[in-house]
Amino acid sequence: MEKKIAVLVTNMVQDDELAVPTDAMRQAGYSVTLINGSTDDISGVMGRSFSIDAAIDDVKPEDFDALFLPGGFSPDQLRTDERFVSFVRYFLINNRSLFTICHGPQFFIQSGLINGRKLTSYESIRPDLYLAGAITLDQPVVEDGNLISSRTPDDLPQFVPAILQALAK
Amino acid sequence: MEKKIAVLVTNMVQDDELAVPTDAMRQAGYSVTLINGSTDDISGVMGRSFSIDAAIDDVKPEDFDALFLPGGFSPDQLRTDERFVSFVRYFLINNRSLFTICHGPQFFIQSGLINGRKLTSYESIRPDLYLAGAITLDQPVVEDGNLISSRTPDDLPQFVPAILQALAK
Repeated sequence: MEKKIAVLVTNMVQDDELAVPTDAMRQAGYSVTLINGSTDDISGVMGRSFSIDAAIDDVKPEDFDALFLPGGFSPDQLRTDERFVSFVRYFLINNRSLFTICHGPQFFIQSGLINGRKLTSYESIRPDLYLAGAITLDQPVVEDGNLISSRTPDDLPQFVPAILQALAK
Repeated sequence: MEKKIAVLVTNMVQDDELAVPTDAMRQAGYSVTLINGSTDDISGVMGRSFSIDAAIDDVKPEDFDALFLPGGFSPDQLRTDERFVSFVRYFLINNRSLFTICHGPQFFIQSGLINGRKLTSYESIRPDLYLAGAITLDQPVVEDGNLISSRTPDDLPQFVPAILQALAK
């Protein structure tokens, strides 16, 4: 069966961090579902428009094989909404594949489940994750079991192959 | 002598959180200096343009009586730059007046000096501040000695009078 990847995203996402990995996943034959509070189009920080496939109230985390959390200023907005945090929590606590870049790991602080996990992130939020008990690293890609993380759009050439390799398992 | 207020700010500041308190401070006769990495104009999240008065390399914290940190997505960008974090640290460690709203307290995490201080903030970053050891509250204005904080633009009607009262002391 075709693997399904959920993406939690809202306005002010970093455009390339959303577009590049999701394009690569679709080209590799995976089903990608962009999820926000409603199904209205969103726009990235650089002005690109993206279609939303599903509203958070109409999806369940158990219906997806993997979760992708892109960065920019999208995660900081969504993490105030328990519906999104609870969705993220499911993938952490049930050891399902979770890919995240830049500000994506901000969700993990509200999840309360990042203590002892190894990851990287955009540098601004790295102290926040450190204080939440994560083991924070400064490298292009960090893999901790099913959790794969990167820092910025510059890491996409390493991040995308790591995601595709994990999905191919 | 006229009191001087420094404001650390860059693009994607929340427009009202910058404009409303600084207009009120200027009208009350105080000198307000907007500081960024360069003196290029910046624009807020809602599209308003603001002039910058000084570049960070050309100012010293000891030349100001108070510091104001507005929110939006400005603080998360500036807190990756040690010059700005060091500027903030001066006001915390030397007990000078410090006013902040929304995402402004993100600077305090990098400062390493917020343990045990009482404050409020935008709800998304409140867990980050809690994990940094701050005593986080959910109320329109929190005053902890010289540190005055608020949550969102909706708190401006309470935040601005608290600032003006502190400056009048």
